[in-house]
Amino acid sequence: MTLLLNNDDVEAVLTMPDCIAVMEDTYRELAKGAALSRTRSDSFCRTARSDALYSLKSMDGVAPKLGVGAVRINSDIITWPVEGGTERRVKVPAAPDARWVGLVLLFSTQNGEPLAIFPDGVAQRMRVGAANGLGVKYLARKNARVAGLLGSGWQAGAQAMAVCAARKIDVIRCFSPNRSNREAFAREWSGKLDVEVIAVDSPEAAFAGADVAMCATNSIDNVFFRRWLKPGLHVSAVKRPELEVAAMKACDMLVIHNNVGSPTHLFTKGVSIPEKAENKGWMLAEEIGFDTLPTLPQLIAGEVAGRTNDNQITCFLNNLGLGLQFAAVGSIVYRKAKERGLGREFPTDWFTQSVHP
Amino acid sequence: MTLLLNNDDVEAVLTMPDCIAVMEDTYRELAKGAALSRTRSDSFCRTARSDALYSLKSMDGVAPKLGVGAVRINSDIITWPVEGGTERRVKVPAAPDARWVGLVLLFSTQNGEPLAIFPDGVAQRMRVGAANGLGVKYLARKNARVAGLLGSGWQAGAQAMAVCAARKIDVIRCFSPNRSNREAFAREWSGKLDVEVIAVDSPEAAFAGADVAMCATNSIDNVFFRRWLKPGLHVSAVKRPELEVAAMKACDMLVIHNNVGSPTHLFTKGVSIPEKAENKGWMLAEEIGFDTLPTLPQLIAGEVAGRTNDNQITCFLNNLGLGLQFAAVGSIVYRKAKERGLGREFPTDWFTQSVHP
Repeated sequence: MTLLLNNDDVEAVLTMPDCIAVMEDTYRELAKGAALSRTRSDSFCRTARSDALYSLKSMDGVAPKLGVGAVRINSDIITWPVEGGTERRVKVPAAPDARWVGLVLLFSTQNGEPLAIFPDGVAQRMRVGAANGLGVKYLARKNARVAGLLGSGWQAGAQAMAVCAARKIDVIRCFSPNRSNREAFAREWSGKLDVEVIAVDSPEAAFAGADVAMCATNSIDNVFFRRWLKPGLHVSAVKRPELEVAAMKACDMLVIHNNVGSPTHLFTKGVSIPEKAENKGWMLAEEIGFDTLPTLPQLIAGEVAGRTNDNQITCFLNNLGLGLQFAAVGSIVYRKAKERGLGREFPTDWFTQSVHP
Repeated sequence: MTLLLNNDDVEAVLTMPDCIAVMEDTYRELAKGAALSRTRSDSFCRTARSDALYSLKSMDGVAPKLGVGAVRINSDIITWPVEGGTERRVKVPAAPDARWVGLVLLFSTQNGEPLAIFPDGVAQRMRVGAANGLGVKYLARKNARVAGLLGSGWQAGAQAMAVCAARKIDVIRCFSPNRSNREAFAREWSGKLDVEVIAVDSPEAAFAGADVAMCATNSIDNVFFRRWLKPGLHVSAVKRPELEVAAMKACDMLVIHNNVGSPTHLFTKGVSIPEKAENKGWMLAEEIGFDTLPTLPQLIAGEVAGRTNDNQITCFLNNLGLGLQFAAVGSIVYRKAKERGLGREFPTDWFTQSVHP
């Protein structure tokens, strides 16, 4: 049977500690050359809306130890509205019933069969959270107790889960520009996590006394600055532009997620994406020299040392997602969903064929 | 609704003339830069069988004029058995019920929604046939009447359809090493096509008097040689190694399918694929200098001239498949299947999500 799951199913079975554990082991495999990840590709063309582009994005990964391969696909209508003088990248829920389109297909490396199909939404934020959680685990001070968090959206929740899974956190101070959003976030996550989550009214208040500074925003401009660094801090970002370059350069240790290579960007003729919104990350890559930086898999595999004393300032930048993350997370989702009888079961024959392709 | 189709559905709606027509127009779009194709990637690792590897293959394409994007995925267990002193690449039907795994996912470029999911088997041979059929249309003599064909398998049938769609063919002479296979092929296709298909007992007999020489084999060794060239002939191959390099070099005009770039091959540590079986094509590419050769999209767009007289020897080599072909073919499959009410309809919501991914 091939399992079709929805985000509720994924959320029901995927805990942050499990996610961190499976990804930790899979990064070790990647460092050994025992797992594979095919870099993302994005294809852009015009669409019905004159202010939007269509984007078809795909990435693959194979985790032999887990017995799975995964392909993650996003089929998006994207706009770049200007808000408060800044361009933001916004995916439009243009599919029927105002929904988004992102799918993970999971296959067996033992017999090739399609094991499961599920939306990428929950898995996507959990794998981002888990990667940054591993950054905290390997780089933050062991006695870290206080986290500051910028952002109160979809990614911020996963970051809150992740930091609490990696360290014994007592308090998370959260800032985001919209007061009601950050207060709602504080209420929700105080309930869900066994920590005090407090909404504060400035980034400075979020980071005051923090051992870990986490950025989980949708911003394409810098949100974390050098002036906020202090001895012993661990800084964590989910997107390249979040961190001021000067801040990254001033850290004692900067670790990136991976250096498997830049995504492939294809455009139909005459089509381009807003320079500032999309290219800042890549320009940053050149300025910082990503090729020479240690990566999370290297750190986990012990190929590079982590923090060596409590005064160092460390930084983890989740520079680019990997298809492999969806294989790792997918293996947990599939196994647990099967155990619990979740999802819709289809005959595997519906997704296989009797002809040699 | 999202349509789930099987190969019977695809076969029922996909005619070779339609396939050729939609691909011809889509290649024109590609030449203009108005369509996109992301080159294939293959990831290889070990699997349960010690004599086999697992391969996860993917390719994408976007055809804005047709309003669709497609991702094609293959999840295969592959062996390289030696038969008659020669290695062959054989995909093992290892999925439940002894089946293969190849899927096409079709998306709308207008709203991103998943339109259809179907196995790649029939679509795959139709798009190979149609590409070579376009080679015949643009390169063979207008008065071509006789076709020679090497091969009697899955691809050979599509090549027979294609040459008949492109020229008014009277007779196809078919050779393959196994007598009963070639005789069965002749019976089947004499019935299906309005031409005489004759099984012959040597390649020479197949090509005697032929205006078009078509190779549609599973061979990883040369099957067509320079000594069989003669004025006015059009040579057609579905795989790189089929043609002796000397034969290609001796043609007046050699057109390849595309030069979007070599596939990405990823291997886990210690894993490799048989040099001869897999690398011959790429070595060939270097020897022939694929980068400088005219391509089918250029030929169709009129950027390069086709045959200019009846004595020229022309050659079309289908060097590498494109994800874009599955978008083009998929658009026909989807539209016609909808019209005829074929396939299983699922709520689109099952494949979309309410969270911003």
